[in-house]
This record gives sequence, structure tokens and C-alpha cells, in this order.
Amino acid sequence: MYRTHSNGELRATHINEEVTLAGWTQKTRNKGFMIWVDLRDRHGMTQLIFDEERTPKDVMDLASSLGREFVIQVSGTVIERESKNPNMPTGDIEILVKELKVLNESLTPPFTIEDDTDGGEDLRMKYRYLDIRRKPVRDNLIFRHKVTMAVRNYLSAQEFVEVETPYLIKSTPEGARDFVVPSRMNAGQFYALPQSPQTFKQLLMVGGMDKYFQIVKCFRDEDLRADRQPEFTQIDCEMAFVEQEDILNTFEGLTRHLLKELNNVEVGEFPRMTYDEAMHRFGNDKPDIRFGMEFGHLNKVAQHKDFNVFNSAESVIGIAVPGGNNYSRKEIDKLIDWVKRPQVGALGMVYCRCNDDGTYKSSVDKFYDQEDLAKWAEVTGAKAGDLICVLSGDTRKVQAQLSALRMELAERLGLRKPNEFAPLWVIDFPLLEWDEETERYHAMHHPFTSPKPGQMELLKTHPGDVKANAYDLVLNGNEIGGGSIRIHDKEIQAKMFDYLGFSEEEAKAQFGFLMDAFQYGAPPHGGIAFGLDRLVAILGGQETIRDFIAFPKNNAGRDVMIDAPANIDEAQLDELHLKVEISEE
Amino acid sequence: MYRTHSNGELRATHINEEVTLAGWTQKTRNKGFMIWVDLRDRHGMTQLIFDEERTPKDVMDLASSLGREFVIQVSGTVIERESKNPNMPTGDIEILVKELKVLNESLTPPFTIEDDTDGGEDLRMKYRYLDIRRKPVRDNLIFRHKVTMAVRNYLSAQEFVEVETPYLIKSTPEGARDFVVPSRMNAGQFYALPQSPQTFKQLLMVGGMDKYFQIVKCFRDEDLRADRQPEFTQIDCEMAFVEQEDILNTFEGLTRHLLKELNNVEVGEFPRMTYDEAMHRFGNDKPDIRFGMEFGHLNKVAQHKDFNVFNSAESVIGIAVPGGNNYSRKEIDKLIDWVKRPQVGALGMVYCRCNDDGTYKSSVDKFYDQEDLAKWAEVTGAKAGDLICVLSGDTRKVQAQLSALRMELAERLGLRKPNEFAPLWVIDFPLLEWDEETERYHAMHHPFTSPKPGQMELLKTHPGDVKANAYDLVLNGNEIGGGSIRIHDKEIQAKMFDYLGFSEEEAKAQFGFLMDAFQYGAPPHGGIAFGLDRLVAILGGQETIRDFIAFPKNNAGRDVMIDAPANIDEAQLDELHLKVEISEE
Repeated sequence: MYRTHSNGELRATHINEEVTLAGWTQKTRNKGFMIWVDLRDRHGMTQLIFDEERTPKDVMDLASSLGREFVIQVSGTVIERESKNPNMPTGDIEILVKELKVLNESLTPPFTIEDDTDGGEDLRMKYRYLDIRRKPVRDNLIFRHKVTMAVRNYLSAQEFVEVETPYLIKSTPEGARDFVVPSRMNAGQFYALPQSPQTFKQLLMVGGMDKYFQIVKCFRDEDLRADRQPEFTQIDCEMAFVEQEDILNTFEGLTRHLLKELNNVEVGEFPRMTYDEAMHRFGNDKPDIRFGMEFGHLNKVAQHKDFNVFNSAESVIGIAVPGGNNYSRKEIDKLIDWVKRPQVGALGMVYCRCNDDGTYKSSVDKFYDQEDLAKWAEVTGAKAGDLICVLSGDTRKVQAQLSALRMELAERLGLRKPNEFAPLWVIDFPLLEWDEETERYHAMHHPFTSPKPGQMELLKTHPGDVKANAYDLVLNGNEIGGGSIRIHDKEIQAKMFDYLGFSEEEAKAQFGFLMDAFQYGAPPHGGIAFGLDRLVAILGGQETIRDFIAFPKNNAGRDVMIDAPANIDEAQLDELHLKVEISEE
Repeated sequence: MYRTHSNGELRATHINEEVTLAGWTQKTRNKGFMIWVDLRDRHGMTQLIFDEERTPKDVMDLASSLGREFVIQVSGTVIERESKNPNMPTGDIEILVKELKVLNESLTPPFTIEDDTDGGEDLRMKYRYLDIRRKPVRDNLIFRHKVTMAVRNYLSAQEFVEVETPYLIKSTPEGARDFVVPSRMNAGQFYALPQSPQTFKQLLMVGGMDKYFQIVKCFRDEDLRADRQPEFTQIDCEMAFVEQEDILNTFEGLTRHLLKELNNVEVGEFPRMTYDEAMHRFGNDKPDIRFGMEFGHLNKVAQHKDFNVFNSAESVIGIAVPGGNNYSRKEIDKLIDWVKRPQVGALGMVYCRCNDDGTYKSSVDKFYDQEDLAKWAEVTGAKAGDLICVLSGDTRKVQAQLSALRMELAERLGLRKPNEFAPLWVIDFPLLEWDEETERYHAMHHPFTSPKPGQMELLKTHPGDVKANAYDLVLNGNEIGGGSIRIHDKEIQAKMFDYLGFSEEEAKAQFGFLMDAFQYGAPPHGGIAFGLDRLVAILGGQETIRDFIAFPKNNAGRDVMIDAPANIDEAQLDELHLKVEISEE
């Protein structure tokens, strides 16, 4: 053992003990006759002291040659510090060093190993092993570990069994974003990496496994949005002999446990909101309910005048921005520019100042009098001092645009407090979703999701209206989990495949084993999957998942540290019976 | 909720309660006026009773139509059984059914869902979801879950942090058995799936993570021996600032904890044996020490007569088979045939009976007198009633052959008791291993393993003699874990790569990021990895890992249930810029 204690461990009670420590040199102060070194490891920091009166000369010399990030081992006596540091757990003591050994030297690191580093994201990713030495990164990884332990112990105590499902599975044309894996032993054939263990967990239910979970890597080969990873981790869960209510209760319990265990936050019963209500009140199926600014539907009170922009719009919707009347004209213009950015896509924004004296001043005063504007204020809940922002157009678009504005303003106003947690169930999702590209309905969740009882018939006449036994768990404006009650009847499943445009052969080729399984006594079942990366980030009071992944990939799906993906040998390709063909474009 | 209780839950204390149960019909006995149904779920079995006096007629009719593996839900009263079944946890009670609902029908399953099924391995694999309904398979999966929970909680309590390392990494020519994964976003480039997280865990040590573990899938695309899988699970561990002794103690603690927790077996300090000693005494680097039959080295006592087979042999080694003198001539001939099978490869076997009257009778009496044979008995430890089996030839070959014979005989003699546990550390492995094919030395463990202190110089003169800081944990004749202290000095690592035949460019291309990392203050570190599949099987008193994997693949690497691997679409190949080229041979 290279050490008797960690660098976070020693206290005043250890004074006069002989100890051996090891770690990295964080900082050195050299006054010639006296040298202080801050020694760091995962557990903390301890101050070492070398002085010419009490430290052997050769040790003194070696100490003055130490560079940043050298790995050293020291032995010495724990002594009381003259000037204690109350901000450091070990701040009462220091080590009077008698022996010093350099275990390994270090080049000067490319960025400072400190809480606030001078290294940019690219540099830190390339040297991620140095980035991990920084306390914020290290703490995030340890926090992630605590979350997974809490999840496992909670579910395990509830009789859930963690079952490992295979990573080398079968690709389906449905899985256009599957990563595929050529097999050496089966020439010309491919495995696929799972986008989720969906079918396997359903097969475990058919197998009687009853309460299953797994913390498992999943894979998706697609253009990466800013905060997505080609490999990501799910807490995947499934239960048999349950209804939606049972699943909501079980996983509300899990989430409440995590909030208590990791954040010491007690939350009551989670509110529930239908998808339709969430879209109506917040224009979003994952609303952040930590703050208000709910949608005010202004069609009735704004479509009676000559303002054609509103009159021709499907929806006119406004929100009241608390204290927004403080904004200068310039600031409001910037806000208008913001909603007109292509990422948001509004054509413009109407606004109305709510003055402290109870009067209103809008950008459309030509069309609306004080009485009209008072109604706007009433509908949006605006008070004196607020600013009403109004967007209009096609309902779906206005919802998305105004929701984006609501989130942006809340962020700016500091209403999205990282230490406040507001979970929410969004239920009754539509079964189907219209796809503009293919001009047909697709399964919103996946083709195994069961419609609400009695709605199967609606499929033929009003497919868009069919609601599913599907639910999302939302936390602070992020979807952290989603799931559904599955179809367990092979006839209904066959009908669903048929409706979704699978021929009988296609359905058989892709899901034959699942449909076969359903012939042998499938129990009613359903489940949920949590995105662990996001869940951990949000519990950690942040939103960037990359900060909670040890070795993340960048937006191009590259690991810049190891430089992957990369070309492979011709010989390797030959063995796989593959040829790379890149056309010159 | 479809049930108020599980089928393993009800006891005499529940009598007169109204309950609702759900599950699968295991068995039906129909006497016309009375019907009994055994209802099964993951938790157990409960007897249902329908009788014409107390059960409504329509329920009675429905009950008599139930087939095997129907999924049903029943409500009724818990009543005392007339004839109790002490072998069943729920054997004191039965349910007098009032309501019955068929939740799903079932075709007749292709094999019986019973502890001893009539289904062969192939059929059970194809319908693995039905196989999992069988208690032995289900119990194995639940046992596996308990093992992983125990591992995680133990290591976590010791301040180990589970860190997820990436699955999409970089292929190296070294990794000839890598599975590769084409990237859509990086045309013509490939990721590889990890054969182990070796380099990442070393980078975590450089990153200061100190005590790391991970239960993680690993992948190897190679011809599968009988009991190997292309994807397998490791308990992967690494520690910094440790010496070999620290690692042995830590993981001896883990293993002892598992044996206590899961098998209720207390074991003392694990014995340690050098690799050389293990080979000398057992001819094997993973000896089963639950029984004796140790090697007796007979060169001295058998090479002084005219028996040329022995005289020309490098080694003459025997073992004493307890009670083996009972074997008939025919049985001994069969044993000789057994060692001559190509899988074992001996040219013949000499034997010597140890008669009860103290005399000896050998197959080479022509050359050896009673006094000679008495010495054989002394060296092998044979007693009256035993049989001495002797093989001769090249040392390495004789060791392997006689070790195989020793294990086979122990198996036949019932000496390999599944409920007895004999762990053993094998230490001081050779650093290098001679490879016949390439005619050079290769790293026995991997190129990051550190030689024993002071042995680096031996590399030049006696490479085969260099011992490594490498160790295996052996349990009941199986290697369940192996690891080493790593090289943490970039100079030594560079020398090692050079010695192993990597050019500087190759080393840089393949391990550049690790060697870079070593420039920035790598701490001394080492680790171990356990094969979870095998560990679980052995703790479960078995040796076939497939029985402890939910969805295993067969020897050709195929999942016969989902029929993977399989061909993929041309369109998918085009997107990946790949062409399959299978030559007609």
C-alpha cells in the first residue's frame, strides 16, 4: 500500500500520527526556507510542509524540484497548522514531511487542473483523463455512481430482477438508425446493436420474469443533436400483470426515492397532466412547471378587430413575462429577433406592456384599445409591471415557438432553479403521429404500445385522435422517462402492424419471434425506460449530459481522445468479406 | 393491479381472506365435479379449486376448458387444504375460486414447462422465453442478479466507483478478434466493440479515479469453444497506489463476501501458489484443490531400468487414484483409451495396482520389481487399494494430459463437490508466452503487465523466465478472475512494446493515447477482471455458463431465437459505404 490515509481524511484528531500519503502535486509555494505543497487525490487535498530546520536537506531539494501534477509519496507527521483553513476538510492540519519519493513525473498539463480550468471543451475532451482529475468532473462521475446504486437497490428491494439482455441482436429495416456489426463466423451477415432492449424485455415478461430492470447501454447511429450521444444509457424496466396506474406508482416511488436520497428533497404526489392539456397550457409535452407563464389563449379576445395577422391565424397565444415591462425597447427588439431565428421560426411577435399605473401600451395599439388589452392581461394572467408576448399562426407552430420563448425567458429570469425539482406525469399520449415526409401515421412511441381501451375502432376513422396507454415522466422541463402499456394480444398486435403499413411478411421477418411468443400465453405488461444520462444530469442540477459521461463523444460521434472511429486494415475487412466503397463526390 | 398476492405468498395465516391471483396454468386435474388447477408465476405455485357445489357453473365450465400455459386471473377465498403438501410453501392452503378470467390463451408449448423438461437444448434455445418460465432457469437468472447486487454493494462500500466506459471504441490490428462497427457519420470508418475496458480503466487511474469497477459486457469475435460466448460479462476492477498484495487482499475480501452471502460458506485465508508450483503439483495453472491426486514426479524412481519409454521421456509423472484398484481390466483399458483420445493426446498409459495385501501389480512388471513400485507408491502417495496412473513424455504435454485425467477421474469419483468451495490465488505468472505459430514471445496477460521488480534485465537473456506481477483467482478448478500490476512508467512501457515487436509507429497508432497519458503523472496501479458468467455458474454449483445467461448464443455465435446475425438491406449497406463480397469457394 502506497498510503496509510487518503488526502481527504486527516483531521485534528490525527495530530502527531505518522502517516504516508500519495497523490498529485496541485500547487507548490516555495519560500526557500520553507516549501508548501498541496497534495491531491480523489478524496481531497492535504497540505504538506517542508522546512529547512526540520526536513532533511535532500528532501528539501527534491521538494523544490516538484512540478505540477507530479505523482509523489510522502511520509511524515501530522501537525497542527498555524493558520487553519476552515474551507478545507483537512484545513486544521498539515504534514511535516520526512520522506519524499517521486513516483512519476509529469509534463506541464495542457490546461489547469482546477475547478475553473483554462482549458476549452475540445482540449479537455482530448485529454479527458486529465479533465477527470478536476473536482467538478470527478464529482459528477461519483454522483452518477450513487444514482445507479440507489436505483438498483431500490428496484431490487421491490423484487425487480436485473437481467442482462444481448447486445448483439438482429437488425430490422425499421431500425434505420441501427449500428450493425459484421460477423466473422457468419460470412456476409450482421448483428445490430440494440436501440433499446424493448423486445427482449417483452420476451422476459412472456417468460414470467414479472419485474425486470436493467441499466443498459443503447445505441443509435444518427446525426447527433447538440446533446445526444451515439451510445447512451437507459434504466430499462418492465412489469407484468400491471395496469398503467401500477407503473406510474412504482416509478413515482423510485423517482421520489432518488430525490430524497441524492438531493434530500421531499416531493409529494406527482401531478398528472394529459398530453392535450400540456400542449394547451405549455405548448410542450414536457413542460417545466417550476414556474408559471402559462399560455393565454387569445383567439376570443383578439380576433374581433381589423388586425389581419391575428384574424387569419389558427391560434393567437400569449404569455405574461413577470416584470417584463422593465425591458427597454431595444431589449424587446432583441427578443423579437430571438423568436425570428430559424431555430424558433416565428414571423414576428406582438407585445403589450402592462404599466404600473394600470394602463397598457402594445405594439398594435392601432387595432386594440385599453379595454381589449385588459382582456389580454386577464387571459394571460399579466399583472402591472409584466410584459405580454403574443405569437400567432398555425397552432402546432405557435405552441412550439411560444414554448421555446417561455423556456428562454424563464432561464434569463432565473426561474429554472437547479435545486428545485418539479416532477410531472404526462399521460394519454396520442398513439400515432403524422409524418410529413412519408405522409402517413407512425407509432409515436413504438408499434407495441397499446391504444386506450375501446379506441381500437377509432383507428379507421380518426387515427390522429386515438390515445395510447403511454406516459412520460417529466422533471424540470426534461423528459426523463417514457413508457407504455404494451399490446399482449397477438390479434391486436397483428392489426397494429397492418395499420402501420407492415405487410404480414415484413411483420413476421422483423418481429416474428415476438409474435410467436405472444401465442404462448403473454401476460398483460408494460414498462418504462429512463434516460440515465439526462436523469443524472438533472438530479445533479445541470442539463448537459456530456458532463456526466466519463468518455463522451462529440457531435460528430467521434471520441477525440482515442481518435475513433478510424480506418481498419484491409486484412480485417477481407476476413469480414467487406469492401469499403466511397464514391468521389 | 391484476393480483393482490403472488403465487408464492399465501400461507395458513391468510385463510378466509379474499384474494386475486394471476399467472399461468401449470397443471389441471378434472374430476368432473371438482377441478384443481396449479397456478404458477415467478414467485411460486398456488393450488386453485373449483367445485360444482361452491363454484358458479359458468366458472366451472371455463375452468374445464383451460389448457396448459393459459394466462388467467382468479378471485376467491383462501381456504385450508384437506390434504396439505409440505413440499410446497403454499401447501397449506388452496383458493376456492369464484371468478375466473382468461387473460390470454396459449398454444401447447413445444416442451413441458417443468423442472425436468422433455425439451432438448436446441428447442429450448429457440423458445428461450418459455424455457425461462422453468424454475431452474428462472432461479439461475435471479441468482445472477443477487451476485451482481452483492458485488456492487460490497465494492461500493469499499469506495469503489462504477464508471461506464465506452462501447464504441477503436479497433487495433492487435485486436484481431475485435467486432467492428461501421459508422454512418464517418464514411469508411469503424468503431470496435471492446474486448475489455483495459485501456479505459488505466486512463481512469491516470485520471485519479483511484478505485474503479464496472460490470460490463465485452466482445470477442472468435471461434467459440463449447462454453464461450461472443458477448460476455466482466466484473472489471482497477486500483491506484496499490501493490499486488493490496489487490489480492481486496478481492479475496470480495470473493469471501460472495461465498458467505450467496452460499453461506465461510472460507479462511485463500492459499497462494506460484504458477510454477501449480504446474509442478497439478500440471495446471488453475488447479482444483478440493481433492488430492497430486502429481508424483517419478523420473528418479522410474528412469533406472530398461523401460525406454520412460528413459527417453523428459518427465514421468503419476497420480494415485483413490480406490482405483477396484477398476476391472476392462475399465482400465477404457481409461487408457480415454487418455489416447485426440482431445487429450497421450500415447499410452502405464498403471500400477496397489493391492490390499501390500503387493503391486503393474502393466510394466517386466521392468520394475516390487521395490521399484513401492517407490512409485511412495512418491505418488498411493495407498493399498489405489491405482497409480503414469504418463510420460515432454513435460508440458504430460502435465496437460495428466491434469485432464486427474480432473476426469475426480469427476467420476464425485470428488468435485458443487457445494464445496476451494479458492486459490495462483501468482507469479510468466510475463511472456512462446507462440509456436509466430515463433516469438507474446505477452501472456497483456502488454501493460509489469514484470516483477528487477526482472526487466532478464528479458534480453532469458525471456521465458521473466515473471510478472500477474495473478489469477481460481475457484474449484476454474479461473474466475485474473489481473496484474500494470506498467505505469512510459519508458518501461515503450521498452515492452519494443520487445513485443511493435514498431514505435505501431505502438503510437494503437496505444498512443495511453502512452500520452503516461506522460502526465500516471500513478502506480493494477487491477483484476472476473468473468461474471463463470463466477455465477460456479457459485451456483454448476459449470455451464449458458445456463446463467438469459439469451445465450450457440457455438456458431447465433441467437437461434431471433435468428441473428442475418443479412441486411442493400440500402443499409449503401448508407455505410459497404459491399459484401463472398467468394465462391
